[in-house]
Amino acid sequence: MAVFQSLDLRKVRLDDPVFAGRISRCLDVTIPATIAKLEEDGHIDLLKQLPWPERVPRGAGFWDSDVAKVMEGMAYALALRPDPALEKIFDDWSEAYRAVQQPDGYINSYLTQYDPERRFADMARYHELYSIGHLMEAAVAGYELLGKRTLFDTLRRSGAYLAATFGVGEGQRRGWPGHPEIELALAKMYRATGDESLRKLLAYFIDDRGTEPNCFVAEGRGDVCWYEQAEQPLREMTEATGHAVRMLYLLCGVADLAGINQDAELLDLCRRIYRNIVDKRMYITGGIGSSFHFEVFTVDYDLTNGSMMYAESCATIALALFALRMFNLTGESHYMDTVERCLYNGILSGVSLQGDTFFYTNYLEVDDNLVRYNSGNRCRQSWFGCSCCPTSFARFLPQLGRFIYSVNEADRVISLNIPAASHVDFTLGDDAVALDVTGRYPYDGAIRITVTADAAFTLALRIPAWCRQWSLKLNGEPLTDTRVQRVWQTGDLLELDLDMPVEIMRSNPRITCNAGRIALQRGPLVYALEEIDQAAPVREMMIRTDQPMQLVPAPGLPDGTLAIEGQAIREELPGDALYSTGAPQFSEIRFRAIPYALWQNRGESNMAVWVREAR
Amino acid sequence: MAVFQSLDLRKVRLDDPVFAGRISRCLDVTIPATIAKLEEDGHIDLLKQLPWPERVPRGAGFWDSDVAKVMEGMAYALALRPDPALEKIFDDWSEAYRAVQQPDGYINSYLTQYDPERRFADMARYHELYSIGHLMEAAVAGYELLGKRTLFDTLRRSGAYLAATFGVGEGQRRGWPGHPEIELALAKMYRATGDESLRKLLAYFIDDRGTEPNCFVAEGRGDVCWYEQAEQPLREMTEATGHAVRMLYLLCGVADLAGINQDAELLDLCRRIYRNIVDKRMYITGGIGSSFHFEVFTVDYDLTNGSMMYAESCATIALALFALRMFNLTGESHYMDTVERCLYNGILSGVSLQGDTFFYTNYLEVDDNLVRYNSGNRCRQSWFGCSCCPTSFARFLPQLGRFIYSVNEADRVISLNIPAASHVDFTLGDDAVALDVTGRYPYDGAIRITVTADAAFTLALRIPAWCRQWSLKLNGEPLTDTRVQRVWQTGDLLELDLDMPVEIMRSNPRITCNAGRIALQRGPLVYALEEIDQAAPVREMMIRTDQPMQLVPAPGLPDGTLAIEGQAIREELPGDALYSTGAPQFSEIRFRAIPYALWQNRGESNMAVWVREAR
Repeated sequence: MAVFQSLDLRKVRLDDPVFAGRISRCLDVTIPATIAKLEEDGHIDLLKQLPWPERVPRGAGFWDSDVAKVMEGMAYALALRPDPALEKIFDDWSEAYRAVQQPDGYINSYLTQYDPERRFADMARYHELYSIGHLMEAAVAGYELLGKRTLFDTLRRSGAYLAATFGVGEGQRRGWPGHPEIELALAKMYRATGDESLRKLLAYFIDDRGTEPNCFVAEGRGDVCWYEQAEQPLREMTEATGHAVRMLYLLCGVADLAGINQDAELLDLCRRIYRNIVDKRMYITGGIGSSFHFEVFTVDYDLTNGSMMYAESCATIALALFALRMFNLTGESHYMDTVERCLYNGILSGVSLQGDTFFYTNYLEVDDNLVRYNSGNRCRQSWFGCSCCPTSFARFLPQLGRFIYSVNEADRVISLNIPAASHVDFTLGDDAVALDVTGRYPYDGAIRITVTADAAFTLALRIPAWCRQWSLKLNGEPLTDTRVQRVWQTGDLLELDLDMPVEIMRSNPRITCNAGRIALQRGPLVYALEEIDQAAPVREMMIRTDQPMQLVPAPGLPDGTLAIEGQAIREELPGDALYSTGAPQFSEIRFRAIPYALWQNRGESNMAVWVREAR
Repeated sequence: MAVFQSLDLRKVRLDDPVFAGRISRCLDVTIPATIAKLEEDGHIDLLKQLPWPERVPRGAGFWDSDVAKVMEGMAYALALRPDPALEKIFDDWSEAYRAVQQPDGYINSYLTQYDPERRFADMARYHELYSIGHLMEAAVAGYELLGKRTLFDTLRRSGAYLAATFGVGEGQRRGWPGHPEIELALAKMYRATGDESLRKLLAYFIDDRGTEPNCFVAEGRGDVCWYEQAEQPLREMTEATGHAVRMLYLLCGVADLAGINQDAELLDLCRRIYRNIVDKRMYITGGIGSSFHFEVFTVDYDLTNGSMMYAESCATIALALFALRMFNLTGESHYMDTVERCLYNGILSGVSLQGDTFFYTNYLEVDDNLVRYNSGNRCRQSWFGCSCCPTSFARFLPQLGRFIYSVNEADRVISLNIPAASHVDFTLGDDAVALDVTGRYPYDGAIRITVTADAAFTLALRIPAWCRQWSLKLNGEPLTDTRVQRVWQTGDLLELDLDMPVEIMRSNPRITCNAGRIALQRGPLVYALEEIDQAAPVREMMIRTDQPMQLVPAPGLPDGTLAIEGQAIREELPGDALYSTGAPQFSEIRFRAIPYALWQNRGESNMAVWVREAR
């Protein structure tokens, strides 16, 4: 196991038409905006245990996680681009966490101030371990990238406290995180410290979860067992159940432990649930969780597009993080197909191009007021009552570079996972290696890779599953294998050409709402029809798949963005009755589709990914 | 106002292919089955204040409503067909209610035994007034049809207690029923007794609801204001909101008060919300409430068909009861179109032909496991944890005869609302009138009406909105007006022929999930494709609307039931991937559709009302 490791994000500089701009906007806009929101609405007052400001709601047990996620993003941002003012905030908040930590190592700003007697009294619903987990992630990021010790040492103490508290040993108590997250954080802290007690605690949380007697039942919260992946022993689970973000964070921790302990059974568990998700429970955008109510997985093939759907930004981010782990553990390319599906579609849709507004729910269809019931609005928002999504982007976008390459040091294999234009510079054993990738991926399949190295290694170019034809040349000579093993010399040039036609995607007919509909995909990009681009309501349009389509620059979107245009048929019914016998009228019109991730960046508009097909 | 009154159910004997069998099965099966269930699971132990039986759950504040609804059904059943054993149960339970009534008139078997201190402490969530309302309905039915006084006098005392308790007068308290029902019950009791204090209480509940200061907010349940139609003064409401059954029971009470007080503003309120439902929020089956979660109305045009939908049997029943009231108040035929839509489709689907199992949710589409998340099963059940639906059928089915005729005594108008084969025998002023309607409606549009009377009156034959061509003859002579005013003589024969072709129904494209789909309707019957009848999964089928369709006897369903057959195209995709680029294969097959209300009576099967159209 553990075929690959991701590269340190500092090693990769992106220069592509999609990710590069998103990263810089995150640093310029998203992180400052989320910091301002945390300060505005009382998160920082709570952290500093100040008297509660009248102007804002009273906070909650999960609020530390919001702060922690932004701090983690700040650590990445500072690693990519020094910023003394930002660093001062990181140091200031780190100090505050040191101060709010209880003598025994416990941290929770809210419970400490308002409800100290209730520590771990409601593991099922409070988010104490979840919040500490996010703080631990921020602490490891700050330490590993910036050498920051204050938060790191603070969270090491928390880790030691938790390791002493939870378990089946003498003097320990059983208990499971209601919202998983601490598991993957413990893996990070374990890798950073080598502290065996953390590995043991991680294994305890995985192995004990769902066993009898059920801890949630014991605290009177048996009602949430399904919702919180604790209906059965975790190792026996077969389906993605309950709250989608919880499920995927848990799987990240399971994958981490599988790698750490070389535990094949846990890896199988990950594969099993992954297959259930990808084969039966995932939107074409990578979105997961079909039900707005309770933000949960429901049943196989229940993937409606409208007002009842969910596909939370955080859940898709978690799926990408999990699939990356699985790719690195196994080297199997299909995991990276899922990563790409998430990154280019269901994740980036969650944040505006400007970087300061966010979707919680990533709809695949919006029609006039259909969304009103669900979220009260159809547009991205700058903040939410439970504002997990904005803070997820603050910490996720700066990490995009980590997805591009994976490296197997022992076998001297470098995998170019996603051929986005980028420069990478690192050492493989004792050898300096630099790669320059150029091209307009994901808008163009022509990719040029220039090597700067004098060393033997394998450069493995991943061919995405969507690509049905490709060609590869090394210094002008055709190659048939995309794993190129040789003694590389500076100046070696690889020319990879991925055929990237517009694909007509159809969904499994068991997703009955999509029957008779198609989606357009080109390369890794799923397209959507935004009403602002059409001459008719999207709901009345049928795409003619028997006619050629054209690629054109997408108006009003970043330079280089390609839209798809073609012929459509408009179907109009007479009158406005709910049900009628009136015969429809048909007319020929044009359609334009834009990358799904970029919708709702040119004003409010209806939109659909799955559109009827005219034949 | 109050153009019409429904006829006493004893006056009408049905002899048609649909209703007659449902009524007799209710008397033979449904009422005995629900009585047995009430006894089995502790409802009657609770009513009799017996120590709690170990074998069953502990009951709830709404349990009296279940008993009351079955008692109401028993009263109708006894009126239609004497049954001493059944009458003994009615008398026994009536006596028990007399005994459980508190000295001041309050009744609630559950709170009296287990939580007496909490009387009216949580009006928003407890169902005390709801339960008393159902008891009041049962009491009025027993008194008016059978002369039973025990329950009637008991509930008169409860009515007097409530009239003294609630209001804005001195010594009274404000308070609103969380689950409306008492309103329409007060109207019944007022009509039966002429007690002005009941009319005043009814008016108070209508006029005060939603005004400031909000009573639900005052009891700390501001969260349910929308759900319980109390976000704004009731008279100002414009849309059907919140819990569907609550909304419709409330509207029944509003319509009753509109009629009693000749209150045009209240009638406008009813019209307004009715139009919102019928124009934008109702399934083609008459089902209402789009969201399984919380059983609520959502937003306009949100009418998905699958696992997230709701369309509770009780809600559709309530819509029919409301629409009948509106027809009787206004004489406007379109209300009766809605009644027919509900009766023949979304209501009768809720009960098996056998009469002993019931749907809570009336899906318009079931595909393999799509329903699992919602209800845990795809089949009708004999009982539920909250078992409102079975008991609703016990009281509703015996009343079907009340929908057939409406009479305006003053103007001497008899309306044949639904031309179902039936015999009716009543007096109009001083004149005996009998009508014999024969035919196979709703399967056939040929209707013959023989008059036995020697009197002047108007016989108004309603032409349903689905009927685009009709002819009428009186004693062989064509008529152009379906309101036939004359001095009738015994032996007069009306021959009404309603053209009843198979109609291709399309839904408003704003119901985006139905775009590109059709439903089949013939007369008032909406049809469905049940997979048991097909050569392919329904999800893969497209109906050819360019080919003729045939009417054939429906196999395995009651004699006389007509199925629709025709040509379809099957679309098969290669493989089982969630999303793929594979080209579909097409083949010609036949399809068979049966009346929606009869689905799932021949074993478990997938089903769809809205099916793709092939052109």
